[in-house]
Amino acid sequence: MKKELYLEDFAVGQVVASPQRLRVEKDDIIAFARKFDPQYFHLDEEAARHSIFGGLVASGWHTAAMTMRLLTERDTVPAGGSVGLGCDEMRWPIPVRPGDELHIETEVLEVRPSKSRPERGLVKMRTRTLNQRGEVVQEIINNAMVPRRPTREKQ
Amino acid sequence: MKKELYLEDFAVGQVVASPQRLRVEKDDIIAFARKFDPQYFHLDEEAARHSIFGGLVASGWHTAAMTMRLLTERDTVPAGGSVGLGCDEMRWPIPVRPGDELHIETEVLEVRPSKSRPERGLVKMRTRTLNQRGEVVQEIINNAMVPRRPTREKQ
Repeated sequence: MKKELYLEDFAVGQVVASPQRLRVEKDDIIAFARKFDPQYFHLDEEAARHSIFGGLVASGWHTAAMTMRLLTERDTVPAGGSVGLGCDEMRWPIPVRPGDELHIETEVLEVRPSKSRPERGLVKMRTRTLNQRGEVVQEIINNAMVPRRPTREKQ
Repeated sequence: MKKELYLEDFAVGQVVASPQRLRVEKDDIIAFARKFDPQYFHLDEEAARHSIFGGLVASGWHTAAMTMRLLTERDTVPAGGSVGLGCDEMRWPIPVRPGDELHIETEVLEVRPSKSRPERGLVKMRTRTLNQRGEVVQEIINNAMVPRRPTREKQ
C-alpha cells in the first residue's frame, strides 16, 4: 500500500532518490520508436551507428515516459494520483542507450495553495532521471496539482 | 519521399498546420498507461468517472508521444532527423479522451546558428496539439538541432 501525500506533506528543499531501477532493453527502445518516433537512430542499430548519436538511442519521449513509470512506482504518491499540469523546462543532456538502468531523484522547489481552488495546491519539482553512471539523461521542472489534507484529518 | 529541411529553410514566424490526423482509441490510452503511467484515470473507464477528469483520459506523456508521431509524419522533416534538445515549456491545458482526433501546428519562434558547431543551428518552435474541436490539448516550446545546408548545396 502506497503512502498518499497531501500538499501539507511537501516542503521546499525535500529531496527524494527512488530505490526503483528501470532497465532499458534494445527491444523496448525499438518498440516505442515504431509507435511514436520512427526515426532511424531509434529503430535500427546498424544505421544508428552513422548518426549523430553513434548508436541506437531511446526517443526522448520514451525517456520521459519511463520517468513517469518510475514516479508511479514510488512508495509515496500524491493523494488522488499524479496530475501533471506540464513542465517549465525539460532537457535531455545525453541520450539513453540499450542496457542503461534508470532511476529518478526529485527535489521540491515550490509549494503553494491554489488561489482559485482552496482544496488544492501546486507543487513545483525538479525531477532528474539518471543512468547507472549517475549521468543525468533527463531533467524536468514539473508542476503537479496536489490536494490539501481534508480538515478532519489535519493533525 | 520527405523533403529535408536545413537551418536555412526555417524563418521566424513560419506556421505549418499538418494535414495528418491521429485518432486516439480507448485501448491505446490503456495500453500506454499500463506500460508507463498506471494510474486509475488512465486505466479504468468506470473508476475514472469518479476522478478529477470525470472519465478516462490519456497520460500527458502519451499525448506528448503522439505529438512526436505527428511530427515525424509530416511531409517536411529536419535533415538528418528530428533531434530534440528539450522544451522550454510544456502545458496540457485539457486532457485527451477516447475518440479524440489530434493534429499539430507549429510556429517557428527563433532560428540561430550554433556558436560551438558551425555546421549546425538551433530552431525554437511552438508546437500545439489540437483535438477535433480545435482545443489545444498540449503546447510545447521545443528546441531542435538542425544542420546547416552544406556549402556545395547553397543556392
